Amino acid sequence: MSDLSRLFAPERIAVVGATDREGSVGRAVMTNLLSEFDGEVVPVNPTYETLFDVPCLDAVADADADLVVVVVPPKLAVEVVREAGESGVRAVVVITAGFGEAGGEGVARERELAAVADEYDIDLVGPNSLGVLSTRSGLNATFGPRGALPGDVSFMSQSGAFVTAVLDWAAERELGFVDIVSLGNEAVLDESAFVEFWGEDPETDVVLGYLEGIEDGERFVRVAREVTRETPVVLVKSGRTEAGAHAAASHTGSIAGSEAAYEAGLEKAGVLRAESVEELFDYASVLAGQPLPEADGVAVVTNAGGPGVMATDAVGDSGLDLASFSGETMDALRERLPDNANVYNPIDVIGDAPVERFADALDVALADPNVGAAVVMSCPTQTLSFDDLAEAVVDLRAKHGVPVAACLMGGASTETAEQTLAEAGIPSYFDPARAVRALDALRSYREVRDAERAEPERFDVDRERAREVLSRAADRGESRLGVEAMGLLEAYGIPIPEGEVVDSPAAAERRAAELGGDVVMKIVSPDILHKTDIGGVEVGVPLEDVRDTYEDLVSRARRYQPDATLLGVQVQELLDTDAGVETIVGTNRDPQFGPLVLFGLGGVFVEVMEDTTVRLAPVTGAEAREMIDEIRAAPLLRGARGREPVDEASVVDTVQRLSQLVTDFPAILELDVNPLVVTPDGATAVDVRLTIDPDELETADEPAAEPETASDTATHGGER
Amino acid sequence: MSDLSRLFAPERIAVVGATDREGSVGRAVMTNLLSEFDGEVVPVNPTYETLFDVPCLDAVADADADLVVVVVPPKLAVEVVREAGESGVRAVVVITAGFGEAGGEGVARERELAAVADEYDIDLVGPNSLGVLSTRSGLNATFGPRGALPGDVSFMSQSGAFVTAVLDWAAERELGFVDIVSLGNEAVLDESAFVEFWGEDPETDVVLGYLEGIEDGERFVRVAREVTRETPVVLVKSGRTEAGAHAAASHTGSIAGSEAAYEAGLEKAGVLRAESVEELFDYASVLAGQPLPEADGVAVVTNAGGPGVMATDAVGDSGLDLASFSGETMDALRERLPDNANVYNPIDVIGDAPVERFADALDVALADPNVGAAVVMSCPTQTLSFDDLAEAVVDLRAKHGVPVAACLMGGASTETAEQTLAEAGIPSYFDPARAVRALDALRSYREVRDAERAEPERFDVDRERAREVLSRAADRGESRLGVEAMGLLEAYGIPIPEGEVVDSPAAAERRAAELGGDVVMKIVSPDILHKTDIGGVEVGVPLEDVRDTYEDLVSRARRYQPDATLLGVQVQELLDTDAGVETIVGTNRDPQFGPLVLFGLGGVFVEVMEDTTVRLAPVTGAEAREMIDEIRAAPLLRGARGREPVDEASVVDTVQRLSQLVTDFPAILELDVNPLVVTPDGATAVDVRLTIDPDELETADEPAAEPETASDTATHGGER
Repeated sequence: MSDLSRLFAPERIAVVGATDREGSVGRAVMTNLLSEFDGEVVPVNPTYETLFDVPCLDAVADADADLVVVVVPPKLAVEVVREAGESGVRAVVVITAGFGEAGGEGVARERELAAVADEYDIDLVGPNSLGVLSTRSGLNATFGPRGALPGDVSFMSQSGAFVTAVLDWAAERELGFVDIVSLGNEAVLDESAFVEFWGEDPETDVVLGYLEGIEDGERFVRVAREVTRETPVVLVKSGRTEAGAHAAASHTGSIAGSEAAYEAGLEKAGVLRAESVEELFDYASVLAGQPLPEADGVAVVTNAGGPGVMATDAVGDSGLDLASFSGETMDALRERLPDNANVYNPIDVIGDAPVERFADALDVALADPNVGAAVVMSCPTQTLSFDDLAEAVVDLRAKHGVPVAACLMGGASTETAEQTLAEAGIPSYFDPARAVRALDALRSYREVRDAERAEPERFDVDRERAREVLSRAADRGESRLGVEAMGLLEAYGIPIPEGEVVDSPAAAERRAAELGGDVVMKIVSPDILHKTDIGGVEVGVPLEDVRDTYEDLVSRARRYQPDATLLGVQVQELLDTDAGVETIVGTNRDPQFGPLVLFGLGGVFVEVMEDTTVRLAPVTGAEAREMIDEIRAAPLLRGARGREPVDEASVVDTVQRLSQLVTDFPAILELDVNPLVVTPDGATAVDVRLTIDPDELETADEPAAEPETASDTATHGGER
Repeated sequence: MSDLSRLFAPERIAVVGATDREGSVGRAVMTNLLSEFDGEVVPVNPTYETLFDVPCLDAVADADADLVVVVVPPKLAVEVVREAGESGVRAVVVITAGFGEAGGEGVARERELAAVADEYDIDLVGPNSLGVLSTRSGLNATFGPRGALPGDVSFMSQSGAFVTAVLDWAAERELGFVDIVSLGNEAVLDESAFVEFWGEDPETDVVLGYLEGIEDGERFVRVAREVTRETPVVLVKSGRTEAGAHAAASHTGSIAGSEAAYEAGLEKAGVLRAESVEELFDYASVLAGQPLPEADGVAVVTNAGGPGVMATDAVGDSGLDLASFSGETMDALRERLPDNANVYNPIDVIGDAPVERFADALDVALADPNVGAAVVMSCPTQTLSFDDLAEAVVDLRAKHGVPVAACLMGGASTETAEQTLAEAGIPSYFDPARAVRALDALRSYREVRDAERAEPERFDVDRERAREVLSRAADRGESRLGVEAMGLLEAYGIPIPEGEVVDSPAAAERRAAELGGDVVMKIVSPDILHKTDIGGVEVGVPLEDVRDTYEDLVSRARRYQPDATLLGVQVQELLDTDAGVETIVGTNRDPQFGPLVLFGLGGVFVEVMEDTTVRLAPVTGAEAREMIDEIRAAPLLRGARGREPVDEASVVDTVQRLSQLVTDFPAILELDVNPLVVTPDGATAVDVRLTIDPDELETADEPAAEPETASDTATHGGER
């Protein structure tokens, strides 16, 4: 990793395109830099002798700067960066717009800019950036109207306007920052670079971001997954619902669209998500200022019953629980509180409580090992000063090392108290739900920190056989496979029903007789994906009807699509689905995050109930188990209403094997096993649909011993 | 309705128990009243000659007051109210605590207080109330630390502490009120009384409330349903999740618990629900200050792309849509905006936009008939003053009469602008989601206002036969009925499968032969409710197995519960459920809101997927149709994946008939039809479970011609 500290803590900055013209970007940048920066600022512009009383240079090469800020017109910008690079500069911020975002020749210009940065190994922010700020050195290399206060969080944004908005908003609330970067078009440095840098930066306690998209999702996940072990990352990711609406859903209607990929990707990366700027900074302040809860139980201490009920609701909505107090806690509370107080959680110290009583109750509650966090709530009363309460809360938080949030339910009268709490990192809000959400963010981050970052299991599979199945289809120039893909599943150890594809009524009858009992018969054609819809599947066919059914299936298929290639009819053993649950396991490939694996309730329900969950491949055993937990229909698998529980381990196994398959073969674009029938005896893939990219087959992830050819690599890289 | 204006606009107030003792409630009330009240304040306390320089009377009877505020100790309070009533006072606020909330003799005392109020026809607030405020007359008859500013909303709260919190909070935000009441124990006047009064009050534009419970839910719904035709009512109802957790769920695990009843009740009442105090007042200010949207399309006008995406997300999360602009609108926008602006919605006027460009874009957008509301968003820029923008927005809102919300995305620099907007009733928030939610509240209220308040349809049913079925069970002293309850459904015109209950293997075989084809056989016992769990149901029994199956069912039942009363075995035609969807229609009785009707996906899914929805009975046709719309599985009924759509009208019919049944017979405590199999040809109730209260049967809602006896009425009333 390159050391981005050159961007945030330079000693000498050159501003190329500096000017004093009113209303210009160059003037704004110069003014901001000159106001507080600890080091030297060198304006570069051949048309001036001096600017703001500082000697003005003709060329960036003469500036001997360790950071160059570029505000020249777009046509000149690339040349300026090259000059800077040639003269040894390794950190550049390109504020100039008119690159990729402008389309047309801007796109080529941006590519050229990236190439120059690459050639000279320059850490380049932008182009089309508002600039960078850092309170480490009083640096404000932006053209925004406002600087930042010092603090312990760093912030990146894909919207420059959003940076100005956040700075204005944060100033009013006295929220501080370490570094801020407006990412611009991300020609070189992107969100992953800054997450990585801040993750190792001792000054930055929390990494915050506003993102609209993550170009290289796989890299982001890899980087952030490491960083979040020690440093919380909180993001507002916009475009949630638009993404949802535009999601190119596979025919199941529920397989991961782009928003699902972001959700899965950010989850795997251990990133916390905030829905608003308010939430972003609520989480930031609590993560920067408070210890993590060691238990999920919350104690609520209040001087009014109604608000206590609201806090209880909020706890119920969160991932936290209302703590159950130990017997000692209740005894101690009974001893210290008046008779009409409530010693159960929420603890009601009653409206006439002085600060001592409040503190007593909180002291007892925080000592209970079931209590991982506390909410202290107070309405305005005659017997209690918010200021005294705040001081007591700060002391008790310090004494017990348990995170606390406050609800001081008043207006202006809470001001000093909130200040006292804020200085100790204790958030205080009127709304109990907001206080509880902040504590819940601590719990979420504790789970991220503690999560095992296990490597996925590698199963012993018949990779060669899988390759053959795919190659055969590719050789026929086909991109969609139906039941023939069963061989692929078999090669990867996923159980399939006994049966085979036959090409005559007589062969069908013979096979059915061997299987014994009623059978399932399905038309096999790469051109007919939704077999059920055209009557292409018959379930429970008795032996005497097998010949006729063969003819029926073929004629229905012919009627539906006269030119369809018919490969025959599959004759399959009939599974006792009554004893099982129909599920779906599917995969598709996200352009940003790579292969995704979906699990959910199958059959007609996959579409209608949308009871599915998604993870990025490769999926670990722990993740596969989480996926089962997450679907609403989980109790069906676990024996609801006296049914025998199914073999969950077989689902976990199947999900992982499918994940391995799609990871091994980039040629697999989409693969749905639907239904995967799960019974107490195991899981069986009853039907499968597969879409491949025949051209990708050659570039499948080979063992290291078989190097890819140069041309293959180039094609591959270009497509990513 | 009594005229509660005596409470809020009295001319002469007596404070019984007035005192000047430091820290006392009596002193606080006197001080508050003397500070701003327009009329006269008369202290009553035999131990003083004067108080605060006002002559102090010995007895309330001498005060000639039209409002009496009671702060004497609880033992004296009832007598004071009686004296006041005898002297002609008709409005009393009892601040004194120590009544029902204290338990013990307080409960009896509260009953006595209510009886006295009833005897003298007194409008009584409390006991255990913080008091009442009204800005109509400068009245502050509370012991709280703060008064209220004048405004156009009225507020009631079941928590007095919450009133003090809200007043402190509102003061900081300069939010005003008409009347405020702390409801206390609601011995006489409850939330319904104030909703009714404020609904007719020309000063009150919006009714707000914080409630923890509604004692007489049926009355509340009746009253609020009328009021919300013209006056919005917004409530924070706490205890959502606790209620959910403690819900005494029926065996299906999903039939309405108490929170579901509140949800259904408030929905029927047309009440909007807020989740926090912030949301409560956000909704209040937009409802008081803005016109209602005539279309659901929202135009977003922004000077920065990123925030525009956030607003789009927020619109997607709401009941509103992103508006599609007409061709004329786009042409006009193209003409007026620079080339690099975005004329699609969200409209991006670009960061360099002056106020004129912003105003042009908004002017064009608001004229589009697809636009029912607009969000104006601005990040801080050098080319635009928030203040100018605010003035332009106020003018354009007035010109077009379309509701607008603003997102001025900054901190202190937005203050004047927000003031300008607030004065015009236009909300402004940093967070786009909050702005969109406020606009969405307008849409919700428009739907409430426009909703048809239709009377439920009355079907021609065989009520006598239904009564007979219930009486037979009641005569046997049984409270639970299984398949025998089928007769009840038949009497109310709900189709049931052909079949009958037989008591011998031979009779079973005879009946099966008559039905033809395979049959369904079920054990019939009032003691075995979950027949499936004990193997008490066999589906698809061929004729030759009917005799054996009869024996099997009986012996399984014997094994399960040796002492169970076995009434026989039901032999039933086998419905082709493959062509149908299993649904559930159920009812139970909520202590506050009366009978509830549930509809949802049936079979094993009712429990696991919880895909159900609830309405208060009686359910109208329109409501029954909404219920179908609301379940996630609705597409299954409408022919997902090429299935034939089912007969939805038969579901609507069944739901209404069941609603009528449970309304007609208060003896029916719980009734589940599960499954109700719905096919393209209609709905059939395949199984039913029923719990009755045999004692209620006598008091079933008779036609008016048969008056209830006095003693019946008394019992009945006491139980409610």
